[in-house]
Amino acid sequence: MITVALAKGALLQDSVSRFSKAGLDFSSVLEPSNRQLMVPSSCGRAKALLVRNGDVPVYVAYGQAQLGVVGLDVLNEHQLPVANLVDLNFGACHMAVAVKESSSYKSARDLPPHCRVASKFTNCAKKFFEDIDLPVELVHLSGSVELGPITGMAEAIVDLVASGRTLKENGLIEIDHLFDSTARLIGNPLSLRLDTGEIESIVQSIQSDQSTHN
Amino acid sequence: MITVALAKGALLQDSVSRFSKAGLDFSSVLEPSNRQLMVPSSCGRAKALLVRNGDVPVYVAYGQAQLGVVGLDVLNEHQLPVANLVDLNFGACHMAVAVKESSSYKSARDLPPHCRVASKFTNCAKKFFEDIDLPVELVHLSGSVELGPITGMAEAIVDLVASGRTLKENGLIEIDHLFDSTARLIGNPLSLRLDTGEIESIVQSIQSDQSTHN
Repeated sequence: MITVALAKGALLQDSVSRFSKAGLDFSSVLEPSNRQLMVPSSCGRAKALLVRNGDVPVYVAYGQAQLGVVGLDVLNEHQLPVANLVDLNFGACHMAVAVKESSSYKSARDLPPHCRVASKFTNCAKKFFEDIDLPVELVHLSGSVELGPITGMAEAIVDLVASGRTLKENGLIEIDHLFDSTARLIGNPLSLRLDTGEIESIVQSIQSDQSTHN
Repeated sequence: MITVALAKGALLQDSVSRFSKAGLDFSSVLEPSNRQLMVPSSCGRAKALLVRNGDVPVYVAYGQAQLGVVGLDVLNEHQLPVANLVDLNFGACHMAVAVKESSSYKSARDLPPHCRVASKFTNCAKKFFEDIDLPVELVHLSGSVELGPITGMAEAIVDLVASGRTLKENGLIEIDHLFDSTARLIGNPLSLRLDTGEIESIVQSIQSDQSTHN
């Protein structure tokens, strides 16, 4: 039986729709009344684990799920040993550096050395500032990162930006771009190697359906 | 102006009520329509930062908030330099080790060495297993930790237990106890040292109100 780790939240609906085109119907996870975290597909051939974004690569890396759908942002942040199989081209957003609109910084290189940068994605932020050779003090926050500059705790933030509305509402402006992110189909490397065709056929259906989306 | 970091969620209502008895009325944060993260008190003398549980000690440690309310579980997990001022005696729960009901383990010492333990509180779990001298592989999850044993990823979990309902619903049973947790009033050490009486009077009001609760 194949197990698929799906992220609760913004990616769920599109994830379910891609698997449904590949013959696995997990639509019951979308019912508002669903409280189950482990949901069988309607055909009984597979099951879905409904987990937080950041936990999708964990369940796939440990092999409790053979496949999963998660954003590239989470993959880059957690760096777990999973195979990045298909770019699903939904859930588009990007990782950005933002500061107060009123500040004079026009790019991340303008930030003062050793300034504070708040982020939920401190690994991505660390790599970015190392690459541009700017030493900063990273402050890990678990939510509402935009409060960092507003309260004066941080000079800048590194955060995911989709529409840009949250930045605007909080008087922040983007000054640098780390990478673009979209949802990815990921797989457990060992399960893929031992696969007798079952996983591959699902991956190929999703991949060819994906080609028609491009 | 005094800034107070309050945790969104289960502790919020009681936190607001304790500050209100000390003369700071933040009741507007409880209005369902409130979307602001920084909310002035009705008297204008103070403001509240509405943040995630885990971020309360961060804002207090960095001095953006002089006071905050958060559970001992979060303080033990994050180990940030904040002063633990008053045990507010609400939000009672405890940190526990749990396994599948069907397992034969009666205490954490029965777990096989090098087994996997899933938790959101991996620092607390690490300390506990080091103290009992049992080497385990900790798997950090960000939510729904009860899925760990259900999927077979982990032999046990370390998680917060309040009523015990989540464990029961997921066929899990508690086999060991790490520590009891309640909400705490915390403070920024430097702000407390430089205080000219304003912070102290709030802390004392909350403390004496607390004595009447005991």
